[in-house]
Amino acid sequence: MKVTLLGSGNVATHLGKALKQAGHSVLEVWSRTRENAATLAALLDCEVVEDLKGVNDQSDFYIISVSDAAISDVISQLPLDGKLLIHTSGTTTADIKGLSGVFYPVQTFSKQKEVDFRSIPIAIEGKTESISQQLSELAGSISDKVFQLDSDKRKVLHIAAVFACNFSNHLYAIAEQVLKENGLDFGLIKPLIAETTDKIQDHSPALVQTGPAVRNDQSTIASHLAYLENNKDLRELYKMLSQSIINFNQK
Amino acid sequence: MKVTLLGSGNVATHLGKALKQAGHSVLEVWSRTRENAATLAALLDCEVVEDLKGVNDQSDFYIISVSDAAISDVISQLPLDGKLLIHTSGTTTADIKGLSGVFYPVQTFSKQKEVDFRSIPIAIEGKTESISQQLSELAGSISDKVFQLDSDKRKVLHIAAVFACNFSNHLYAIAEQVLKENGLDFGLIKPLIAETTDKIQDHSPALVQTGPAVRNDQSTIASHLAYLENNKDLRELYKMLSQSIINFNQK
Repeated sequence: MKVTLLGSGNVATHLGKALKQAGHSVLEVWSRTRENAATLAALLDCEVVEDLKGVNDQSDFYIISVSDAAISDVISQLPLDGKLLIHTSGTTTADIKGLSGVFYPVQTFSKQKEVDFRSIPIAIEGKTESISQQLSELAGSISDKVFQLDSDKRKVLHIAAVFACNFSNHLYAIAEQVLKENGLDFGLIKPLIAETTDKIQDHSPALVQTGPAVRNDQSTIASHLAYLENNKDLRELYKMLSQSIINFNQK
Repeated sequence: MKVTLLGSGNVATHLGKALKQAGHSVLEVWSRTRENAATLAALLDCEVVEDLKGVNDQSDFYIISVSDAAISDVISQLPLDGKLLIHTSGTTTADIKGLSGVFYPVQTFSKQKEVDFRSIPIAIEGKTESISQQLSELAGSISDKVFQLDSDKRKVLHIAAVFACNFSNHLYAIAEQVLKENGLDFGLIKPLIAETTDKIQDHSPALVQTGPAVRNDQSTIASHLAYLENNKDLRELYKMLSQSIINFNQK
């Protein structure tokens, strides 16, 4: 397949690399920031598109990986009637004029780290049966976990991903900061983080919850809140998350 | 070494098994709930102590693994002047009358899952140099990562562990619930959770943060909050965690 990448962020970068490795041709890259497009184009050994009006009409798929708010704007500028335009957003609906479907890889992508695309679930949604079939083939060429999902459920999946991944990573960042402020090495809790994640691969997280809140250990909670007294942000987060654990387990 | 276990929860269970495997003798187990003591004693093939006043005086270590609020009460009932009494709490100070020191394994323990104690960091604190030495030997017999830490810093380490482990696991539980309510399988985000954790083994979490909040993608955030409108608890958590990510990255 021939592909045009519209966007040059983490998703576009990793997707472009995976498509190329699977034998597809990435013809060109466009990005709002020309420099970013050039960087990704160099990585993929392809052309840079300066202006959306100038995209070629030879690609089989035009993959839009830009911020959710910019998707409609990008589509409206593309002179590509009847071409397969798809976006990679978890939350944006497929119901956009000019859009053919959605290709949402359920993964966190950072430029610093390679990923194994074959194990990444990809949710697809085509506006017609035929488009779904073509999306399924494209996704299947890079992943073993392709499934169809409508826009409403895809949004739910994205919300779950934000809680489980983006928010968890932020908690790791908080932990690192708290340790650093006290001259302690973040490495001390890496085995703990690894074990927490490893545990839920085989067990329901609700059933393996540990810590002061699930034990309703108010003396420990009070001691931690007292320590966090001078950091209102962390103190409120600690309180709210502890209360949420207590509520969750009373259900 | 000969050991008496006071407590029969997750820490006492895994610690007892690790000590036994390392060749130590667990002589007896006491617990507030006799049935729990009996279960652990059966697992470790040792005696049950019915009454704290009846613990034997032959052990080298008396390890107190009870809730933080109960530690002082347990110590006060033990007729063991001059014996090595230690607790396993992250947050409770070593400065308790009758206590000799602290032995805090930095890990999450669930009865359902085995752990490799050799990779678990153990923070020790002895009231004297000689006690620290003995604690170091005991800890070193089951772990390769033993280090000394005073009570104040141990509490900080525990707080970081609560954020990184207990709170993250709760976010996994929330994600599982959100998915389940929509007929979606938690397995769909397991690769994402694994990747998030894997990433921070080699990268600072603050530098690999992804998701709508760190992009300040307000349209996605608004869409997610609208979906969570009927779940006040999750909605507030989503808002607070997103704002915390935004604040964190503006520093």
